[in-house]
Amino acid sequence: MHVLIIGAAGMLGRKLTAQLVSAGTLGDKAIEALTLADIVKPTSPVGFGGKVTELVLDLASPSSAQQVIASRPDVIFHLAAVVSGEAEADFEKGYRSNLGGSGALFEAIRTEGQKQPYCPRVVFCSSIAVFGPPFAEPIHDDFITAPQTSYGTQKAMTELLLADYSRRGFFDGIGIRLPTICVRPGTPNAAASGFFSNILREPLIGQEAVLPVDESVRHWFTSPRSAVGFLVHGATIDIESLGTRRTLNMPGLSATVADQIEALRAAAGEKAVKLIRREPDPRIIKFVDGWPYNFAPERALALGFKAETSFAEIIQAHIEDELGGALP
Amino acid sequence: MHVLIIGAAGMLGRKLTAQLVSAGTLGDKAIEALTLADIVKPTSPVGFGGKVTELVLDLASPSSAQQVIASRPDVIFHLAAVVSGEAEADFEKGYRSNLGGSGALFEAIRTEGQKQPYCPRVVFCSSIAVFGPPFAEPIHDDFITAPQTSYGTQKAMTELLLADYSRRGFFDGIGIRLPTICVRPGTPNAAASGFFSNILREPLIGQEAVLPVDESVRHWFTSPRSAVGFLVHGATIDIESLGTRRTLNMPGLSATVADQIEALRAAAGEKAVKLIRREPDPRIIKFVDGWPYNFAPERALALGFKAETSFAEIIQAHIEDELGGALP
Repeated sequence: MHVLIIGAAGMLGRKLTAQLVSAGTLGDKAIEALTLADIVKPTSPVGFGGKVTELVLDLASPSSAQQVIASRPDVIFHLAAVVSGEAEADFEKGYRSNLGGSGALFEAIRTEGQKQPYCPRVVFCSSIAVFGPPFAEPIHDDFITAPQTSYGTQKAMTELLLADYSRRGFFDGIGIRLPTICVRPGTPNAAASGFFSNILREPLIGQEAVLPVDESVRHWFTSPRSAVGFLVHGATIDIESLGTRRTLNMPGLSATVADQIEALRAAAGEKAVKLIRREPDPRIIKFVDGWPYNFAPERALALGFKAETSFAEIIQAHIEDELGGALP
Repeated sequence: MHVLIIGAAGMLGRKLTAQLVSAGTLGDKAIEALTLADIVKPTSPVGFGGKVTELVLDLASPSSAQQVIASRPDVIFHLAAVVSGEAEADFEKGYRSNLGGSGALFEAIRTEGQKQPYCPRVVFCSSIAVFGPPFAEPIHDDFITAPQTSYGTQKAMTELLLADYSRRGFFDGIGIRLPTICVRPGTPNAAASGFFSNILREPLIGQEAVLPVDESVRHWFTSPRSAVGFLVHGATIDIESLGTRRTLNMPGLSATVADQIEALRAAAGEKAVKLIRREPDPRIIKFVDGWPYNFAPERALALGFKAETSFAEIIQAHIEDELGGALP
């Protein structure tokens, strides 16, 4: 089978690529071809015996979507997005990329299918940013999508498109609403949600990290490993049972910053906890206040999606996947 | 003040125009200018002392949206749409008009505001087609928008855009989700929902009408008069209290076909009821099965939106507004 990953150069795209190459299969089918697309050159996969095509393009540019679809991939992972902060700062860019790019992809698939029958699986990476307060406690599968950001709006609109294109039979779409990914590998970044990862990742390797909110703040988490698992599972399950509601809230862990710190203490001791510096940031406190923090993802659980149930597991996954299995 | 009606040639557009001309004011302000836009020439209003501009254009065509916005209307009623059946039959046309046209309008307002500050009220005509089964009983204000048609998808997507553009301060938007309008004036049409009006309108004037569904079918109704009232009220109320959830389910009447027939009997006697011919139509029965039929529109009621509470009132409104106050 031929797998296309759009947004292959990002953190999730790289991890998904590595997972697919390592498995060599998706579901019960061998992966014979892999197309990796992004606006920057994706990292070439190591140890893959099949055909690899790398495409550097902007999905929202004219004919780019047709270019990625021309080879008629069987499964398409659509992970490409301008992130939340950038979509809020640059209104036009956010709509052009996140809505326009996704719309162009879906149209390219539909028009490709007009040449000869074509109905790929499309796994769309959505976000809990489609939800805005006031929240239900917990948020159920049929909770209203009332986003508080342009990014969340673009994701919610794309979910609607995904459902309609799927209902019309143009492709077989599934939307995956990811929790906040923690522990994000790499270096601290400017994302408002970055501190959730920073306060674990940095102290685990003996570095300081800043905590800008109160320890009582609750949020909804999953590991990068589980996030990749969601995407793979979404690509392979029978989704007929979803009916026309094609996007699912993923399982995750509802935990407070205090829970995170307790798990850090258990994993790396008091000296690691002491590396967290409290610096309240009113801007981030305000952001976090508008984020959902607890879900009852019954449909996804029934369909076999699985996530961590404690921060100890999330930290362990990070140590195994990013630190070679042990603390330095 | 300057009022723009987009979709002015349609049934609602004509009635709204007549209402505004008759009142001469919107809220507490005199209407000095009226711009009527549609893809066909709108009927010129009779008895209006202010300036009238008629524009024949397709909102989705390049520069059309800028053209309607260039004169900076204070209040914009956006009623233009390709109807449900056509949007389902012609996928490209539906998206181009209902999503593309609305998006072009919103962008024209935003970019006009970049020249010099501009923040009109935008009253967007949405639909209960944004909802799909399984339904809550009744449907509450925060019920999930999971449409079962391309038309409903386009309306739901436009609602999301409306909310985001309003949140960003580009305009002051409100979305009005209309119930099925009954009794629609005119002649029987091919719309799947047309029979709800046909079985009253035709027998009231001594004509036969076809009932394609069972009398137990329940649906959600309002009169054309109330629908115009919703639009006018939406143009004038203080909507700060809506927060970021800018689209409202309107009040209406949840009634069965049997309720309709009972009201017809009371208004026009058994001889009128005898003009209804039962001809079950599996296609229409299936459509109707996917339509919402009962709401608890608490937010709209709290904001002062008002509708009929019986089919006797709905029939009386039709007799007054369309039949000169008495049956022929």
